[in-house]
Amino acid sequence: MKCFVTGGAGFIGSTMVDKLLENSNNQVTVFDNFCSGQEEFIKHHFSDKRFNLIKGDLLNAEIVKKSMVGHDLVFHFAANPDIAKAMTQTDIDLKLGVDATYNLLEAMRLSGVNKIVFSSGSGVYGNVGLVETAEDFGPLIPVSMYGACKLAAESIISAFCHMFDMKSWIFRFANVVGTRQTHGVGFDFIKKLRADKSKLFILGDGKQSKSYIHVSDVLGAIDFAINNTNSTVNIFNAATDDYISVREIADIVIDVMGLKSVKYEYSGGDKGWKGDIPVVRFNLNKIHKLGWRAKLSSHEAIRQSITEMLSLKLTKKQT
Amino acid sequence: MKCFVTGGAGFIGSTMVDKLLENSNNQVTVFDNFCSGQEEFIKHHFSDKRFNLIKGDLLNAEIVKKSMVGHDLVFHFAANPDIAKAMTQTDIDLKLGVDATYNLLEAMRLSGVNKIVFSSGSGVYGNVGLVETAEDFGPLIPVSMYGACKLAAESIISAFCHMFDMKSWIFRFANVVGTRQTHGVGFDFIKKLRADKSKLFILGDGKQSKSYIHVSDVLGAIDFAINNTNSTVNIFNAATDDYISVREIADIVIDVMGLKSVKYEYSGGDKGWKGDIPVVRFNLNKIHKLGWRAKLSSHEAIRQSITEMLSLKLTKKQT
Repeated sequence: MKCFVTGGAGFIGSTMVDKLLENSNNQVTVFDNFCSGQEEFIKHHFSDKRFNLIKGDLLNAEIVKKSMVGHDLVFHFAANPDIAKAMTQTDIDLKLGVDATYNLLEAMRLSGVNKIVFSSGSGVYGNVGLVETAEDFGPLIPVSMYGACKLAAESIISAFCHMFDMKSWIFRFANVVGTRQTHGVGFDFIKKLRADKSKLFILGDGKQSKSYIHVSDVLGAIDFAINNTNSTVNIFNAATDDYISVREIADIVIDVMGLKSVKYEYSGGDKGWKGDIPVVRFNLNKIHKLGWRAKLSSHEAIRQSITEMLSLKLTKKQT
Repeated sequence: MKCFVTGGAGFIGSTMVDKLLENSNNQVTVFDNFCSGQEEFIKHHFSDKRFNLIKGDLLNAEIVKKSMVGHDLVFHFAANPDIAKAMTQTDIDLKLGVDATYNLLEAMRLSGVNKIVFSSGSGVYGNVGLVETAEDFGPLIPVSMYGACKLAAESIISAFCHMFDMKSWIFRFANVVGTRQTHGVGFDFIKKLRADKSKLFILGDGKQSKSYIHVSDVLGAIDFAINNTNSTVNIFNAATDDYISVREIADIVIDVMGLKSVKYEYSGGDKGWKGDIPVVRFNLNKIHKLGWRAKLSSHEAIRQSITEMLSLKLTKKQT
């Protein structure tokens, strides 16, 4: 299968590329603008004839159209990784999330590529506290441009699928963690504690509580769903069964780093920033009933990702 | 109150402008690119000092920003009126629906204008047959770019409201009919029958069945909701209690035009075009409980709008 992976040099995308190339029948095109993607994550494939790298921007419609020809399946992971940035640069998610997705879909339509896997997120559900949102939850009232543009991207994918006979698998993932993550709370804590081992500044009150899924489980969920569902639009929550608080994550980071007597300081309030959602709860019945379940809990995923990040020889962008 | 009306020279927008200027305390800025708007609909206000016309395009962010300063409330009616066009021009709703809405919101943010009324539609619900969709219906699986981009616009309005302390009233209207409509099934039938009184070509099988709301009821619903609700994001279905089929609309048009022995010809299939939704059913409990109900039924609204359109001295664009 010829796979086209947007954001293929990024955290989740590059991990997917590794997995795809384990299968000798697959060919992979990585399409990445290296805005947050890193050559480091994919360079071990450079000598593989089945691997093709295109340094391009999804906002450049012509390059996307030209690059798309001849593929079978698109994995769309490219996105703005800094979700708080929209407070000052209000169109960043619109460009990187919506316009980019449209260019991709239009290129697919013109080339007759009719299958897309999209990485959405819990942001589409808005801030609904302890409500366990299923895929058919409503009303959808996003509170950030990040969430709004994930929902907008899902919507235009759905429209293209119905208007132009495509199929899509849309995943509303929990926070994804793993070796190559380039942002996120665990990543930030390591960075802060490396700079100052005596204290840790925590955004909010530390009680924010969400599901954290390991990237290995993300790949597993995608693989499972695309092989077991075949609707025009297939939407799935994919998360762990448990939740973990920011304070607990701090404790794990400190434990894995072997630190002691670290003083916690809090910015206060229940949110990290205005569009932040302090509590996220998923209803996972749909994907569980289908037969998939995350192998690692949130606690295990966090501990493993912290261990992985600490053992990784850090590249310039991560330090 | 200083009101900013996008699409203010269009069908619904210009009717809203008439109503707003009946109140001597109101001032109105019409912002329209005259793509489908008509000077004919607003020229009776040109001598009114409380009326201001800006011929501008919402895709020109700088003009929108400059024009927005000093207003209190935005009515956002501008949209692509030709929803089938996206089959060939796939980005038309993205530009006119999403990018335009973003430019408007950004101008509001920069000028401190914090209230917006948005005209959305049943397209956000996708094709769910006889299911009576309430405002919290899910999952939302739009089948056209029109519907997808209405949902996308709702989403970014919601994000801006939460991130930048705005308030919004979002209306998912049934098909709107009235004197100044410039598209729609009744409008098309009049046009076709004026050209040939012997036969009428009907898209689909004529059994498509939806709610048609008169523009007077649209204005009533908006006025009622903005005076009786005050949440950050207020979403309402607004439709009639009844439904009418395309065949029944044809019968009414022929009756009002005084024609006889018109032969119906059908393109066949249950849809007018690929992104069309043949059956739309609203759950109206939310707005009914609040105290609003459409004064005219779908049958009455269609008959009245046909009568109004026939009595109107037609402008060039309508004939």
